[in-house]
Amino acid sequence: MFIDEEAKGASSIAISGHVRPDGDCVGSCLGMALYLKKLLPDAVIDVFLGDFSETLRRNMLGVELIRPDFKPTVSQYDLFVCLDCEKERLGEAEPIFNAAKKTINIDHHISNHGSAMVNDVVPTASSASEVAYDTMDPEKVDAAIAQDLYIGMVTDTGLFHFSNTSRHSMEIAGRLIDFGFDFPKIVQEVWFQNNYVQQQILGRALLESVLMLQGKLIFSVVTLKELQFYKASSKDCEGIVSELADTEGVEAALFLLEMRPGTWKVSLRSNGKVNVASIAESFGGGGHVRASGCTTDGRYRDIVSRIAGLVEEQLEGAHA
Amino acid sequence: MFIDEEAKGASSIAISGHVRPDGDCVGSCLGMALYLKKLLPDAVIDVFLGDFSETLRRNMLGVELIRPDFKPTVSQYDLFVCLDCEKERLGEAEPIFNAAKKTINIDHHISNHGSAMVNDVVPTASSASEVAYDTMDPEKVDAAIAQDLYIGMVTDTGLFHFSNTSRHSMEIAGRLIDFGFDFPKIVQEVWFQNNYVQQQILGRALLESVLMLQGKLIFSVVTLKELQFYKASSKDCEGIVSELADTEGVEAALFLLEMRPGTWKVSLRSNGKVNVASIAESFGGGGHVRASGCTTDGRYRDIVSRIAGLVEEQLEGAHA
Repeated sequence: MFIDEEAKGASSIAISGHVRPDGDCVGSCLGMALYLKKLLPDAVIDVFLGDFSETLRRNMLGVELIRPDFKPTVSQYDLFVCLDCEKERLGEAEPIFNAAKKTINIDHHISNHGSAMVNDVVPTASSASEVAYDTMDPEKVDAAIAQDLYIGMVTDTGLFHFSNTSRHSMEIAGRLIDFGFDFPKIVQEVWFQNNYVQQQILGRALLESVLMLQGKLIFSVVTLKELQFYKASSKDCEGIVSELADTEGVEAALFLLEMRPGTWKVSLRSNGKVNVASIAESFGGGGHVRASGCTTDGRYRDIVSRIAGLVEEQLEGAHA
Repeated sequence: MFIDEEAKGASSIAISGHVRPDGDCVGSCLGMALYLKKLLPDAVIDVFLGDFSETLRRNMLGVELIRPDFKPTVSQYDLFVCLDCEKERLGEAEPIFNAAKKTINIDHHISNHGSAMVNDVVPTASSASEVAYDTMDPEKVDAAIAQDLYIGMVTDTGLFHFSNTSRHSMEIAGRLIDFGFDFPKIVQEVWFQNNYVQQQILGRALLESVLMLQGKLIFSVVTLKELQFYKASSKDCEGIVSELADTEGVEAALFLLEMRPGTWKVSLRSNGKVNVASIAESFGGGGHVRASGCTTDGRYRDIVSRIAGLVEEQLEGAHA
């Protein structure tokens, strides 16, 4: 697909992605918005996105095009570009999609059925930002567009090391950084940086972590009392389970966060051998094979030992 | 430079890099060794490298070519390839370099004077591995060579986010991962993973870290007693100061590790505004503008407050 052709003649364009937008969603939406604005300077271009992190907001360009109230400026857009998801995950923007004269869907999720009028779904691509770049005329991409797409790619490739990273991804990222924006600072802020509260809570979780099953399982727990002591929110604990999983020899990591007295948010990660989705499902949760979660009540020791049993069963099954 | 031409006819080749070899040094040396072995299957090829980390060793290919005793198998090699440094940093391999019939120096350090007979020093390159790749015939590179060079590039580019990363670096890395080795697992092990003891010590250092100078300076201290309690060595603390520097708002990070009672290894990092080399120098140490260190005696509180004063002076100077 070539977006220059598809957008030709549009005088109003809506752009949106999924609810609770991540870096790839925001990056692909804003990169596309800036590109279309350059292509069609007189067109109305509105981006509909829910709230996202302050760090992302600080590093993305074109955020002024976002209408956080989800109120369309025209009753019917000539074109709706849906990025990084299908229309079902657009949330408040779905009615705007349904009303649009023409709809385009750009995505990299293999589960995407392509429910727009024009679909460009590339499951081999690292990110929606990568697919979006490939719809553009490279000659018209500029530093601002490049910066947004680069952040999107960094987010979904784990800084170019997840298995979705291809030679093509690296080549695109190379062309993007060639525009000369301050990518070292951006990666530092978006990818590596924690605030002080997050560092302390992460520190506590690492320090207090415990190995089980001959070092194959690691778990850590943060109680409501500890959370309150550090004036931290559950959001401040988001990266902890991945850091636990980065412990040498570990096959699975388990992090328990007390949300209300006796109610635990359980996060699970696997380094490959354990299917943590099936474990989360047995607690009424879900997710991916390598990353999943659930919410459950009880004493944390009971929850940990139940999950440890399920991990052990799987590891023994793998060796049988 | 084209290594195929330069190595033509050599029947004995020595390869080496700097003392205390890091990922780029080992990766460029072993990648070059495997390439030359393929080119000249009958030649003697010896790699002279000191000890390096178990994680690197596990992920590098061609380690069996290393002669850790630094004993040459021939009295005079036809060719010596010195990578990632000048001959002055070769350590025990320097006499072997001096005796060689022909010497080649491949490096990316701007300070390199090019003291070999043939020099290929490219200061704009991300890594010696990148320069080494550019000397090779891409058609003859295989998955094993690619894996070594990729690890070298990952190490010296900070997973492609340090400012030395260029479009060319990304393109080469893209070609390398295209060979299909398990780069996600390699990056996970080489770049992200800590052992359990390292995780606990890091956790303690993060948890106990203190902000000073309105959040511009962060410091943390690990005493000898704590080190002994966790059965950790000073090597287990190597990444801590960088993790401290990843705290939002921080300009400089300071980590003090007690080596002997009352003797502290001081590590400093800057996020750009502070020149920590000059601070380390005032304590008899040294290093780079953004990463430096020294060893000093005294009470840790005195050391921290002296360094905080120097950081504050620089930050005030920057605002004046």
